[in-house]
Amino acid sequence: MKEIRIGLIGTGYIGRAHAIAYAQAPTVFPLKGQLIREMVADINAERACEQAKLLGFRRSSGDWRELVADPNIDVVDICTPNYLHKEMVLEAIKHGKHIYCEKPLALNSLDAKQMVEAAARAGVKTLVGFNYMKNPTAQLAKEIIANGEIGDVVHFYGTHNEDYMADPLSPIHWHCFKEQAGLGALGDLAAHIINMAQYLVADIMTVCGDMETVVKMRPEQVGSSTLVAVENEDQAHAMVRFNTGAMGVIETSRIACGRKMGLTYVVTGTKGTLSFSQERMAELQLYRHDDPANRQGFKTILVGPEHPDYAPFCNGAGHGIGFNDQKTVEVRDLIDGIALNQDMWPDFTEGWKVSRILDAIARSHQEKRWVHVTEIN
Amino acid sequence: MKEIRIGLIGTGYIGRAHAIAYAQAPTVFPLKGQLIREMVADINAERACEQAKLLGFRRSSGDWRELVADPNIDVVDICTPNYLHKEMVLEAIKHGKHIYCEKPLALNSLDAKQMVEAAARAGVKTLVGFNYMKNPTAQLAKEIIANGEIGDVVHFYGTHNEDYMADPLSPIHWHCFKEQAGLGALGDLAAHIINMAQYLVADIMTVCGDMETVVKMRPEQVGSSTLVAVENEDQAHAMVRFNTGAMGVIETSRIACGRKMGLTYVVTGTKGTLSFSQERMAELQLYRHDDPANRQGFKTILVGPEHPDYAPFCNGAGHGIGFNDQKTVEVRDLIDGIALNQDMWPDFTEGWKVSRILDAIARSHQEKRWVHVTEIN
Amino acid sequence: MKEIRIGLIGTGYIGRAHAIAYAQAPTVFPLKGQLIREMVADINAERACEQAKLLGFRRSSGDWRELVADPNIDVVDICTPNYLHKEMVLEAIKHGKHIYCEKPLALNSLDAKQMVEAAARAGVKTLVGFNYMKNPTAQLAKEIIANGEIGDVVHFYGTHNEDYMADPLSPIHWHCFKEQAGLGALGDLAAHIINMAQYLVADIMTVCGDMETVVKMRPEQVGSSTLVAVENEDQAHAMVRFNTGAMGVIETSRIACGRKMGLTYVVTGTKGTLSFSQERMAELQLYRHDDPANRQGFKTILVGPEHPDYAPFCNGAGHGIGFNDQKTVEVRDLIDGIALNQDMWPDFTEGWKVSRILDAIARSHQEKRWVHVTEIN
Amino acid sequence: MKEIRIGLIGTGYIGRAHAIAYAQAPTVFPLKGQLIREMVADINAERACEQAKLLGFRRSSGDWRELVADPNIDVVDICTPNYLHKEMVLEAIKHGKHIYCEKPLALNSLDAKQMVEAAARAGVKTLVGFNYMKNPTAQLAKEIIANGEIGDVVHFYGTHNEDYMADPLSPIHWHCFKEQAGLGALGDLAAHIINMAQYLVADIMTVCGDMETVVKMRPEQVGSSTLVAVENEDQAHAMVRFNTGAMGVIETSRIACGRKMGLTYVVTGTKGTLSFSQERMAELQLYRHDDPANRQGFKTILVGPEHPDYAPFCNGAGHGIGFNDQKTVEVRDLIDGIALNQDMWPDFTEGWKVSRILDAIARSHQEKRWVHVTEIN
Repeated sequence: MKEIRIGLIGTGYIGRAHAIAYAQAPTVFPLKGQLIREMVADINAERACEQAKLLGFRRSSGDWRELVADPNIDVVDICTPNYLHKEMVLEAIKHGKHIYCEKPLALNSLDAKQMVEAAARAGVKTLVGFNYMKNPTAQLAKEIIANGEIGDVVHFYGTHNEDYMADPLSPIHWHCFKEQAGLGALGDLAAHIINMAQYLVADIMTVCGDMETVVKMRPEQVGSSTLVAVENEDQAHAMVRFNTGAMGVIETSRIACGRKMGLTYVVTGTKGTLSFSQERMAELQLYRHDDPANRQGFKTILVGPEHPDYAPFCNGAGHGIGFNDQKTVEVRDLIDGIALNQDMWPDFTEGWKVSRILDAIARSHQEKRWVHVTEIN
Repeated sequence: MKEIRIGLIGTGYIGRAHAIAYAQAPTVFPLKGQLIREMVADINAERACEQAKLLGFRRSSGDWRELVADPNIDVVDICTPNYLHKEMVLEAIKHGKHIYCEKPLALNSLDAKQMVEAAARAGVKTLVGFNYMKNPTAQLAKEIIANGEIGDVVHFYGTHNEDYMADPLSPIHWHCFKEQAGLGALGDLAAHIINMAQYLVADIMTVCGDMETVVKMRPEQVGSSTLVAVENEDQAHAMVRFNTGAMGVIETSRIACGRKMGLTYVVTGTKGTLSFSQERMAELQLYRHDDPANRQGFKTILVGPEHPDYAPFCNGAGHGIGFNDQKTVEVRDLIDGIALNQDMWPDFTEGWKVSRILDAIARSHQEKRWVHVTEIN
Repeated sequence: MKEIRIGLIGTGYIGRAHAIAYAQAPTVFPLKGQLIREMVADINAERACEQAKLLGFRRSSGDWRELVADPNIDVVDICTPNYLHKEMVLEAIKHGKHIYCEKPLALNSLDAKQMVEAAARAGVKTLVGFNYMKNPTAQLAKEIIANGEIGDVVHFYGTHNEDYMADPLSPIHWHCFKEQAGLGALGDLAAHIINMAQYLVADIMTVCGDMETVVKMRPEQVGSSTLVAVENEDQAHAMVRFNTGAMGVIETSRIACGRKMGLTYVVTGTKGTLSFSQERMAELQLYRHDDPANRQGFKTILVGPEHPDYAPFCNGAGHGIGFNDQKTVEVRDLIDGIALNQDMWPDFTEGWKVSRILDAIARSHQEKRWVHVTEIN
Repeated sequence: MKEIRIGLIGTGYIGRAHAIAYAQAPTVFPLKGQLIREMVADINAERACEQAKLLGFRRSSGDWRELVADPNIDVVDICTPNYLHKEMVLEAIKHGKHIYCEKPLALNSLDAKQMVEAAARAGVKTLVGFNYMKNPTAQLAKEIIANGEIGDVVHFYGTHNEDYMADPLSPIHWHCFKEQAGLGALGDLAAHIINMAQYLVADIMTVCGDMETVVKMRPEQVGSSTLVAVENEDQAHAMVRFNTGAMGVIETSRIACGRKMGLTYVVTGTKGTLSFSQERMAELQLYRHDDPANRQGFKTILVGPEHPDYAPFCNGAGHGIGFNDQKTVEVRDLIDGIALNQDMWPDFTEGWKVSRILDAIARSHQEKRWVHVTEIN
């Protein structure tokens, strides 16, 4: 079996999740390629070395440029802050590497587009870490919609709300600066739900958005009395129209008290409705309007081995899947895509489309009008 | 105790609810006036007579004009289709009657404003049937917000979705015609959630809306092959800004499969969040961000005798309140307001404000831009 | 229409609920008889008079014996503490009155049996206030089971848990004394769920129970340092076998923290399962095992006009029913039963059967063995 | 770091789960020993070889005796049908191996006791696969109870219900035969909830049970018309008393329609209540009776990094944990226990205590009386 050697850049929150997925994927799935945890790069050599050991990688480096240039790396996996994605991606592509990059793909749509074009020119494969699409429950939702079980979609309501910055005394960090993060909650969180909307319904064509930086200043550090300006939005929402004409609403917030993993959606069709919350990631609510009038209701389907990509984890329905299991499905897609020379999804093009919608929402807010996504580069 | 004699016009769906509330209110509450079910008017004398008997009224008439002119009527209660409200209200005011009118107050804001002015000139008291505000759970939500328990409100998401017209073969009726209903789902349903938004948060200042008639033609009657055009929207949503700067989203639909009583709200504050669904009308979800980090979560509060207006129905918490109980609280407000010569809420001014917002949403949709409510008459 | 004149004894918690039901029933339902709120008796003449006014009754008396003897009373409605039921019932029967008595029918099975026999000899009609059976949702559950939609019932789990005495400093009251209440949580609460079990499944034949007085002493009054012994159980549970062979568990507690109206049941059949909680009294969970394997799940049915006895309250599904609405259905059964000379259900015989099961559980606990209900008188 | 070399016997449903846990544990946790996936044994050499490759083990064997005798194995992990546990365990102990054995430990208490004694004599460490105790949510429940946050436990209600044999046409398999499985639902499922009861509350002292084989004959194979007798119970329940005097009910079923992973518990204390369902394995409901009367309710706590053993999987609360993550915690306990020469929990003694309670329930059913667990060997 062909070896597929991974070079992981960044070992924070999401880098760890990738590493766990790499660890379990070969046991969970009969992968089409041999996954090798080859090298870790991190901000300094010592930490990189330590993390490589903890995460089960063979080698390490304190310099990401060394990693992307290494001939024994097939896939460069980018788990760094948003502002570093572009440079790393372009450099890795220069070395002909396949790319597995965390969302949001770039600080803005223009950057994302350049990355799409670079990848296309180099003929490398790309995958963006929109892991919630890999949840078996999301795949089930997709299947139900594709089967026509809820008829034609007429409305989509989706959120990605969290409360990790709800406390106004929570200190400033890179997510709050335009140069490092680009947009705020939109880029960090809404990217997921927009990708989900397009996965489940159709491409979004026009948007009209509103946003707000609720907490305008934050302490420089925990307990500090020095306040620093927050440069991007804490919360945003937008009305959208899909290319089918279906209407939608997207909401996002990083200060939504009580939402720990508030990716939710309600997809209303002409014959039924789906409802989902990632906080109960293993269940999907399905309503069918053609049930007898006196037996109508939302049915709670617990994801199980009859549903996509669940059985490899467990053969018992309702036994539960976790956050890292989604990443494990994503890694399966990565390894199989490269091994079989097949396109992966969501690729950079999808990542760029999401960025374009995010930028369109921001422009719409500035100009107080509906924006067509094609207005954005 | 002063007699307060009710004249009820219309005995359909909502007229019956009023009648049930009149029946139980004097036993539930120690009313400040003596409620007399005096007269029913309906479309013909026979039906009026029959309904008066069924609903416990003393007299009846096939002519509403007779009712509003009757000297032994103190309150005219209007439960007829929307397009009749204005004429009846103005005529009743002419005879000096207090008015209890169902929502939406009028076909449009301009009409509503005339009704406000007529009532003001005549010095009669007015009450609009936004019954969901009378739910003890809604009053509890109001109390929690007013106490500052969730801090400053930064976001409101509210829906009033139902599926009573989800079936495209469901025949046309008066709700679908502009002349009889005015707006569609907005007027019939969203009026409630807009009123709730203003009750719980603040006045709405600007709106930006979108709407769609999803089912464009409907059978003339059940099973008929003759199709008739639907003239108003099946679904709509809007972004709003409150006068506090808080952001909001309002959604409404009469074709939202699975929603039987889909009035819901999520009120997010700087210190906590409230979440509610009228389908579980006796419970409120409260999240407090100042709970210890390892004991945070949404708490399901079952409405009980410690909460407003519950104890008169039952002294046991969690025993449940029903749709008509809300109307019974509303009737208590009506009788006490008149008996004690106090203003009632929501009055015609509030009804007009809701109509103005509805019209602003419709205009916003037409002109594809944000509309300030003061642009509407 | 025949007049049916009610004499109500007791105007506490449950007496008020009866009064509210009397007030609304004639408007909600097209009753077959003319319900007259004739007379109230309470512990002293003054309170009786005051309550009669508040609750809409014509006359009052400080002496219940006067009420039961009054020739213008057709139905004696007994809402007094348990220990008074027997004497009042027997006296009322002596005067040929129909009886509407709150649960538990008597302090013990033997008393209940005497009451059954007295009623039978006198040929009067009887009804026991097991109101939760009148919930449209319970009727829907019954219909689903009777239709065979969940196959043969193989297991029943039912609870009636509340927390009204959870606080050990909550003072003693009559419910805690054997002479006044008989059993504790079993008599006060479990009576309901046992009646429900027999309504939904079949008659219970054998029982094996356990019980405990968790809080053994309580303050004489709020804040008092004088402690008084609690004489009956705070919590109990029992295994049961129905006459069909189905197995069951019954649980009850008056100290179950967090349960405000914890009447719940899970009915498991060979083809499906029903699940219900009275705290969400307007919804029923239905699982059908013959759904396709990848679309199985519990469906949340919101009670609506397609279900029994809901439409008279409201023609919109999911709009909600309240505690008093159940009593209103019960009052409809009372009035129609008497007007049409039909048997009512649950009658004294059913009340006695429940008492017999309660006594069997208590005996089982004492003797630490399974008890057949026929061992109890 | 010390190598800890695993020999896995059995690669079915649960063997796979162990393998996945072995794969991810070293990346998730900083283990105290170096986990080596050394050898797999399965029913024939070919399958063993194939599974070893799929599951990431170095070597394989078609003979479990070879595995337990192998000098390069430190831990024997037994994932075979119940009836094989005893022989394998005793043989492995003979070779001085530490044992990691799936539940139920043995076919009966007597066998389990022999295994406990053999392990004690040999001084090997033991761990039984009661994985649900390793759920961070269960650990949180334990912490809450241990802290006294719900006061003294007065009642426990626990279930382990599934529906994997609900269909009467589902064919016979080894779980249905006494010689291979011992008890039915009790051994297969209730073992978990009994272990949980003892983990959360205290040791169980006396039991009184009832059980039933509902589906008495099953097809020999799918579609076969030859029927074979089921030899053990489909469902059972029992009343129990803990050594603290607290009362409990245990329920189990393998034919409980709709229950996919129906391990649930309600722990009622003098000051609060906990409620949990494994189908929503990442959330715990907590009620505190000392909350203000008008703010009481069950709080839904989503498990997160502030809770035990969650952060290594993900640093975001509410992001979800899955079935295999529990096994991963269990494997952490195994490796660290052996590496640090510390006792593990639940060990064979705990496994035996569970078996003893299961046998006591069965005897109680046969003899129709309460049984003290010390009556069982």
